[in-house]
Order: sequence, then structure tokens, then C-alpha cells
Amino acid sequence: MSLLNENEKSRISFGECLTAVHEKTPLIHNITNYVTVNDVANALLACGGSPIMSDEPKDVYEITSICGGLNFNIGTLNERSIEAMMIAGSRAKELAHVILLDPVGAGASTLRTTTAQTIVEKIKPDVIRGNISEIKTLAKGSGTTKGVDADAADTVTEENLDEMVAFVKAFAEKTNAVIAITGAIDLVADADICYVIRNGRKEMSRITGTGCQLSSVATAYAVANPEHKVDAVAAAVCLMGLAGEIGWEKMQEGDGNSTYRNRIIDAIFNMDAKTLEAGAKYEIR
Amino acid sequence: MSLLNENEKSRISFGECLTAVHEKTPLIHNITNYVTVNDVANALLACGGSPIMSDEPKDVYEITSICGGLNFNIGTLNERSIEAMMIAGSRAKELAHVILLDPVGAGASTLRTTTAQTIVEKIKPDVIRGNISEIKTLAKGSGTTKGVDADAADTVTEENLDEMVAFVKAFAEKTNAVIAITGAIDLVADADICYVIRNGRKEMSRITGTGCQLSSVATAYAVANPEHKVDAVAAAVCLMGLAGEIGWEKMQEGDGNSTYRNRIIDAIFNMDAKTLEAGAKYEIR
Amino acid sequence: MSLLNENEKSRISFGECLTAVHEKTPLIHNITNYVTVNDVANALLACGGSPIMSDEPKDVYEITSICGGLNFNIGTLNERSIEAMMIAGSRAKELAHVILLDPVGAGASTLRTTTAQTIVEKIKPDVIRGNISEIKTLAKGSGTTKGVDADAADTVTEENLDEMVAFVKAFAEKTNAVIAITGAIDLVADADICYVIRNGRKEMSRITGTGCQLSSVATAYAVANPEHKVDAVAAAVCLMGLAGEIGWEKMQEGDGNSTYRNRIIDAIFNMDAKTLEAGAKYEIR
Repeated sequence: MSLLNENEKSRISFGECLTAVHEKTPLIHNITNYVTVNDVANALLACGGSPIMSDEPKDVYEITSICGGLNFNIGTLNERSIEAMMIAGSRAKELAHVILLDPVGAGASTLRTTTAQTIVEKIKPDVIRGNISEIKTLAKGSGTTKGVDADAADTVTEENLDEMVAFVKAFAEKTNAVIAITGAIDLVADADICYVIRNGRKEMSRITGTGCQLSSVATAYAVANPEHKVDAVAAAVCLMGLAGEIGWEKMQEGDGNSTYRNRIIDAIFNMDAKTLEAGAKYEIR
Repeated sequence: MSLLNENEKSRISFGECLTAVHEKTPLIHNITNYVTVNDVANALLACGGSPIMSDEPKDVYEITSICGGLNFNIGTLNERSIEAMMIAGSRAKELAHVILLDPVGAGASTLRTTTAQTIVEKIKPDVIRGNISEIKTLAKGSGTTKGVDADAADTVTEENLDEMVAFVKAFAEKTNAVIAITGAIDLVADADICYVIRNGRKEMSRITGTGCQLSSVATAYAVANPEHKVDAVAAAVCLMGLAGEIGWEKMQEGDGNSTYRNRIIDAIFNMDAKTLEAGAKYEIR
Repeated sequence: MSLLNENEKSRISFGECLTAVHEKTPLIHNITNYVTVNDVANALLACGGSPIMSDEPKDVYEITSICGGLNFNIGTLNERSIEAMMIAGSRAKELAHVILLDPVGAGASTLRTTTAQTIVEKIKPDVIRGNISEIKTLAKGSGTTKGVDADAADTVTEENLDEMVAFVKAFAEKTNAVIAITGAIDLVADADICYVIRNGRKEMSRITGTGCQLSSVATAYAVANPEHKVDAVAAAVCLMGLAGEIGWEKMQEGDGNSTYRNRIIDAIFNMDAKTLEAGAKYEIR
């Protein structure tokens, strides 16, 4: 296990990852869906990053050039935004910017599946974050899905954890990307190590866009910690889950998913390195 | 009045309608405006449904196929989304999915009026929900409107109620759809019966999107109660109005329309069958 | 200083500006970005205006015709929305409607810079509101920017205030528009007078869209006070800054940028003439 030990040694802490984001204020170019885009912008600002959105092919080359990272989210994709993703992706790659793909709804339609696959093959993102159904669709070329939510049959559980850890590491190796699968149990892996994360609350699935927010925050974390992408993405996943826990604790009688949405972003805003370190629940496999 | 009695007998309660939504978690495909789309998604999740958005012509055939219902909202329509509505509408009709039309701004521009009319004629939606000016525009082929709000001259009042009930029933018969006209007094009718609903608060008009939210929730209610669409849509209208009342009760000094928006969605989230039954204010004509 | 005195005499108070908006409920057509559009709609409703959004070239001629003012915001612009801006702008000009330009990201890309410049030259907006980097880009034909935020090197400070006041008055004279530059110190000027405004809080920059909201509110203020546009826009700038101050006072432990967003819109909703007059912090140069 010498390889794992080397990786262990080169790890940086989640607190260090957070501090780097706060110090560097990474500017992230988001080509994302119009459903959750406002929450994505506020989550990026909350975590210490800075957002810019542009999906016009004639605009994205220059916009992505002034940024540090690029976040693709294929919810509500259209022909124009797909073209914009390809232009921005090529340019970001030339500049060695961090690129993250959130394959929203891959498996639910041919257009979404093929767009996500094309981005993986042609743009070669540094990070791919999705639910288990979306990631399986990318890994296996086909998938089942219930809309934009994961298929229950696909869930990562304590029972299939060894198998899933092996799957995510193998897909990370194949794509040379950090892979983040989020759900009740989250997995964040590169070819060598896999974080198994148990932060978060099931009620987060009653809010639209917590996954989209996480993808943008994870982009900022990877941009600010370019030598430690797997640690940085795992830190972002713990941050989002922990924000979900802290936000839930503040819920009062009569509060529902709209207030919970606000409290989660508020908790991201107020997170410091010490709180993140203390609240992160993970093991490394 | 034997016909009315038969309809009365076949009615299901609003509580039963709500329970069906909670049990079935209907997945709704929304082709909707980008102004209120986030609130629409959170309102659908709050009521027990599940949202998916797609307005790309190459994507909508497959997306609507995996859903249970289709919600058209023509605010911020464009050539691409109109084409997407026609493709999705045809497919949803083939699959006998519930289709709802929210004719936002019909009467305010030729494009909006003709798009709404074309959907009524070609797609034959199961439910049409709008303000009185929008519905009159559809019924009479022309209309007056102040933007996306109803013209004051058109208001449903206690004085013209008999006339308006007759109008809405006639338009329901003509279109073979459930018609919902919302305002200070709400009317929900099919050819035979008309619910006259007095829930809600006038302050709801100071928030953008309560009508859009209602349309998506009404779609979920109709999908979960396919044999009782008029009751289901009336239940959704009462639910939204009651959520407006409950949300308002929680308002504190200094709160305004942004907090009120959150409290209404929260109230939808927390609504149970008993509360809905107790709070619904309606009569049947 | 007779000219200044004449202007001073013809001024109306910020309280009068607010009262006019409340009485007239100006309907504003917004062609704006999809990131902050929901907040723009709610801010317009909060301030006493009424919003409508449309960016389809085939729809905008009629939509803008029924409105009182037109708000252009070039964040997330695309070929379709640029075409729509030109059509709507020409029509609004024919009808002598107030037109405001918010040149989001001018200087960050050629498309944004040239679109903003074209609108200034061809449509001749009545009001231009942006950060200092955006306004300098328009005034000087080129600029530097960090995405959609102002470049720190450009900041209006106590030290360069005289120079900046002269700059903004000169640009107002050249464009025959009211120019509003917002930042730590805000400047609102026509050719003759310049309001120097010190409302607001730095934490407002941690929320997406406070600038976009201000632009829509400023449009409503100018529409309701057509003979006093510079006073009206200055009133709107004070209103927004004061709402930021009032909203911040309500912040409790654990609150962050999402709750702050709500509290600012709530404060706009609750603002009355007396509070605005008492809280406005400005001098006239």
C-alpha cells in the first residue's frame, strides 16, 4: 500500500482547501441551467469564489479566458449552450484551467447522454460530479434514471460500498479525472484514493439545485487547490453536506424547503476552516 | 340537478388529492419562463412532486416521455421554446399525460396570444390556468391586459359571479379542459361544476411567480388524480391560497415580499391533508 | 454657480420620487440576464413597480409598447437577446419611454463591450448604470475588468473624487444621459450636477444581483419622475444602499448572503418616503 501512503502524505486538510478559496477568490465561468443559476451564483459567492455566467458562443472564449475555472452543467442544455461549452472547454483546456462537468440528466435523454459523453471524450474535464445514475451512464454508455434524480436501484449503500469504491476509482483512472458521486453516501476518488463521505441530510433532495451548487463550489475548490484536486473536491462535498446539517439545525416550526435553501447557502457563507474540519465525516479507502 | 348530484357524488376530497400527490411523487416536465423557474421547481418539490425542465426541441421528446405530466408556461417564450412545446405536447398527448397551459401574457402580444391559442387548438391541454384577462383572451380571441397582470375591468366579483361561472363552464365545455381562473375569487370548472374559491391574500400579487408555482402544482395534482381533474386542480388552487394565508400569518415586522415568497413555499411543504381540508374556503356551483 | 442653483431649485426630494413610484406603479420591460432575473422582478414589485420580461425579437415590439420603461441588462446576452434589445429599444425610443442600460461585464469581452457601445450610440439610453470599470469602458472605448466586478484600480475614492465627479458629468453631457456609477461611493450625474452617495454596505457585493436589482428599480424611478431623472435615479441608488443597511441590521447569528438577499428586498418593500429621506446620505457637487 505504498502508493496509498504516498497519497496520504501528500494530502492537504479540508481546512487548508477552504482557506485557499477564501484567499484566492477564484473566478468561475459557469455554463449552467437557468433553473438553479441564481443559487449557483450565491453559493459561489458564499464559499468565497466569484461567479460569471455566459453561454453565447461569441462571448465565451473571452469570458473563460479571464477566469480560473469552468463549470459545465447540462441541465436545460440547448444547441447554443452546447456549442458554447465546446468553445469554452477548448479554450479553458489551452489555458490549463480546471474544468468540471455536472452531467445533469445523463441517461434521461440521448442529447444529454451524448453531450456529456462528448465533453468527457473531447474536453477531458478535471472533475466530474453527478449522482450515481449519471456517472454509471457515462461509465457504461447507457443508464437508467428517473429524470434528474438517481434511480433507487443504483444507490451507493454500505453493502455495495467496496464494489462502488472500486468502480469510481476505475472510472477516475479511465478518465484521468476526479470523480464525485453524491447521494446518501458520497464518493470522491481519483485513480488511487477514494473519500467515502457521510455528511449531508436526506431533506436536501427536497430543494432544487443543491447538486448544482456543489458542482460550482467544487470547481472553486479545485481551482484554488490545483495540486490537490481530489482533496479539494472532497472538501467541497463535505462542506456542502455539513452546510446541509448546520442549516437543518436552524430550522424552526413552519420552515420548509425554501427557508432550508437559504439556510444552507448561509451556512456555506459562514463556514470556517475549523468548523469544516470538525464537522467533516469521512474515511479514505 | 341530477347531473350536479352525480358529479357531487363522484368528487374526492382535497385531502385525498394531496395524499395521492405525496404517495405518487409525480414527475412533471416544465417548459416555463426563466423568471420564476426556480420557484416553480421548489414549489413542485414542496408539494410532493418532482420537477424536470427542458426546452430544447432535440431533448423534449424523450424527457416528456419519462414524466407523468407536462406544464406549459408561455412567459419569456421564444422560437425555440415554442417549437419545444409543440414536440413535447404531441408526445405527451400520445402517452395520455396530463398537460396544463399557463397562458402568461396572452392578450399582451400577438406572439403570446397566438401561441396560447395554437396550444389550445392543436395540443388540447387538460387544464388551462390563468388570470381572467388571459382566459378571456383565449375564449374570445382577443383581450386587454396590463402586462402579465389582469385588467381591473375584468375582475371576478361577487356582483358578476353568476355570469363568470357560466362563462368558465362554457369555456371548459368548449375546450374539454378544466379551466382555472385565479384572482381575488378563483374559479375552477369543468363543463358541469364550478368551484368558487376564496382562499389567498392580495399581498401574493406583490411576489413574482405565485401563479406560475400554482400551475406547476396543479399539474402535479391532476397527474396524481387523473380521474378527478377538476377536484384536483381546485385542491391545488385552495392549497396555494391557503399557503398564502399561512405564510402571511408568520410575517414579522420588517418582512416583505422576498420573505413572504419563502414562507409560502414553506407552507406548501408543510401542508397536510387535514390542514388543507380545514382551511379550504369554497363552494360548488 | 447660477446653473447649479437653478438645478437645485428644480430638484424634487427623494421622498417625492418614491411616492410617485408608489402612485404610478410603472410597468417596466426588462431584457435581462437569467442569473438574477427573479430578484429583479421581486425588487421591482418591492419598490412599487411592475415587471414584465420578454427577449424574443418577435415579442418585444408589442411588449415594450404597453410598458412605461425599458431596462437593458447585458449579463448573459446572446444573439437573440441582442436583436430583441435593438427592436425594443427603437420602439421604446419612438414612444419616448425611459430606457436604462446596465452594461454588465462591458470590458470583459468584445461582444459585451460592442453591444453596450452600440446601445449607447444607436438607442441613446436615458440612464446608464454600472460599476466604474464598465462605465470607463464605455467612456474610453476600452477597459479592464475582473469579470462582472469592478477592477480595484478603478475605485472611486475620497482622494480621486473631484476627478471622478468631473469624469461622470462629462460622460453624462456627452451621452445626454443620467450616469450612475455604483461602488463604495456612488455617483449619479447629469451634465450639471452630481450626487455623491455614501449609502450601502460592502457585504452587498457578496450577493449576486444587487446591481441588477438597482438598475430595474432606477428604471421605475425614472419612469415615474420623467422631469427629474437625475434626482429619481439618485433616489433609487440611495434606496438600494439604505435597504442594504436596514437589511444588514436585521442579520442574526448564522445568517449569510442568502438571507441578506431576502432582507434587502424586504427593506425595499417596506421603504417609505420618510425613512428614505432620513436615511439617504448624499451631497451634491
